[in-house]
Amino acid sequence: MNIDHYRVAPNSKIDLSAWDPNDKRLFDGSKKAGEAALPALNKRLEALQELLYAEGKHKVLIVLQGMDTSGKDGTIRHVFEGVNPQGVRVASFKAPTPLELAHDYLWRIHQETPARGQIVIFNRSHYEDVLVVRVHNLVPPEVWRRRYDQINAFEQQLTEEGVTILKFFLHISKDEQKQRLQERLDKPEKRWKFSTGDLAERKLWDEYMAAYTAVLERTSTAHAPWYIVPANRKWYRNLVISHVIIKTLEGLNMRYPEPEAGLDQIVIE
Amino acid sequence: MNIDHYRVAPNSKIDLSAWDPNDKRLFDGSKKAGEAALPALNKRLEALQELLYAEGKHKVLIVLQGMDTSGKDGTIRHVFEGVNPQGVRVASFKAPTPLELAHDYLWRIHQETPARGQIVIFNRSHYEDVLVVRVHNLVPPEVWRRRYDQINAFEQQLTEEGVTILKFFLHISKDEQKQRLQERLDKPEKRWKFSTGDLAERKLWDEYMAAYTAVLERTSTAHAPWYIVPANRKWYRNLVISHVIIKTLEGLNMRYPEPEAGLDQIVIE
Repeated sequence: MNIDHYRVAPNSKIDLSAWDPNDKRLFDGSKKAGEAALPALNKRLEALQELLYAEGKHKVLIVLQGMDTSGKDGTIRHVFEGVNPQGVRVASFKAPTPLELAHDYLWRIHQETPARGQIVIFNRSHYEDVLVVRVHNLVPPEVWRRRYDQINAFEQQLTEEGVTILKFFLHISKDEQKQRLQERLDKPEKRWKFSTGDLAERKLWDEYMAAYTAVLERTSTAHAPWYIVPANRKWYRNLVISHVIIKTLEGLNMRYPEPEAGLDQIVIE
Repeated sequence: MNIDHYRVAPNSKIDLSAWDPNDKRLFDGSKKAGEAALPALNKRLEALQELLYAEGKHKVLIVLQGMDTSGKDGTIRHVFEGVNPQGVRVASFKAPTPLELAHDYLWRIHQETPARGQIVIFNRSHYEDVLVVRVHNLVPPEVWRRRYDQINAFEQQLTEEGVTILKFFLHISKDEQKQRLQERLDKPEKRWKFSTGDLAERKLWDEYMAAYTAVLERTSTAHAPWYIVPANRKWYRNLVISHVIIKTLEGLNMRYPEPEAGLDQIVIE
């Protein structure tokens, strides 16, 4: 799979309506075949994560963003199936607390960044500070406008200090969201997930798409790229994200640490 | 499986030499059958953890303690295979940093305790402050002696605030440790894990057993019990710990949250 296909080149102009959320061109096969391809990728990711943890050198940060029902939770569950929880952590960023609001918006984010040998998955992130914050006018325009450059500088500092950053926008269509919300209403075991607040956000779909477009145009950099993942098909979304992560980890040329010197002489009593 | 079998009753006298690390009396079958029984338990735990997360009410703290090579890492990998990393976190406590040492010994521990809906696994814990600290005389005896009561009070407060605590001592024999250390020396892919420091600790085996005995006698309470898990057989260790966690979670009588009122009238546009 050519993982660069969905990667946003720095300083691109993005027209999200030209990115098909149903696209599946990189996988030559059915949904069933696509689902059957995932377990082998899970195993590969599990092995790479173990190596990352053992080497204790690189730090990996994975950012998941997308509209409600776009599949952030499902991605975490399926792409990371089987990884060792000892080396993988999820940080979920909800509406900030009063303490968090009393600091700058990157304060709570920085605390959750990965240590050496760790993978951290951000379920939502600092990008909410130029998404929900922008759409709902939670700060004046001059405040959120300067954040794109601030975020780029923050992420550049992280990467210079050894963090590998991958950012995924889970791209679903407005109609797909309607079906997924309807499913939450219709299935008794999913009903508790339904929030009427989600409908108010859905009314702002176009404003969110404009805000996402600005994010993708202004914060996809060589060191911290965005991927626009076609996410109407869950199985395809899982394959794309798995491939991007695996190829990136493979590119780190990791090795198991050298054993201590002099072990050949040792007798255990 | 009768999960109370390995549970330490409060204020028991413990003679660890009478607890067989090879015991497997609660499973009627071979190693192969025991290994084959685990995936169904993984699935059950995965479902219970999802329910715990959805309900967002209970907090679960699992403490793993044991000598080097006793299988703490392996327990995390195999018992929690397949759980959603979004609701499960591992906190590993290594030698304290200068900042941690500048605080009381429970300071770093409290920070890592679970929030509502979370399972947190402690890979080592505050018990090191009455184990390695006692064996190596890192603080005066009057300091570590008062810690048993302090720990009981701390854990009582946590449980009164909604934390369910389970503590597992992974009990291996000294000979089993020898074989596992030898295996690290002999297998090239495991050699990097071998530390000559482990041999110095091994020389203090009896002192550690005395320190563990005091822990088991003085800190197994009704609200935060210790389980002495026969751990020479990895497959049996995994089954015992899985059963204890599953039975405990089942006992919480968890339910999915109620949906919002008035959802029947909703039309998604």
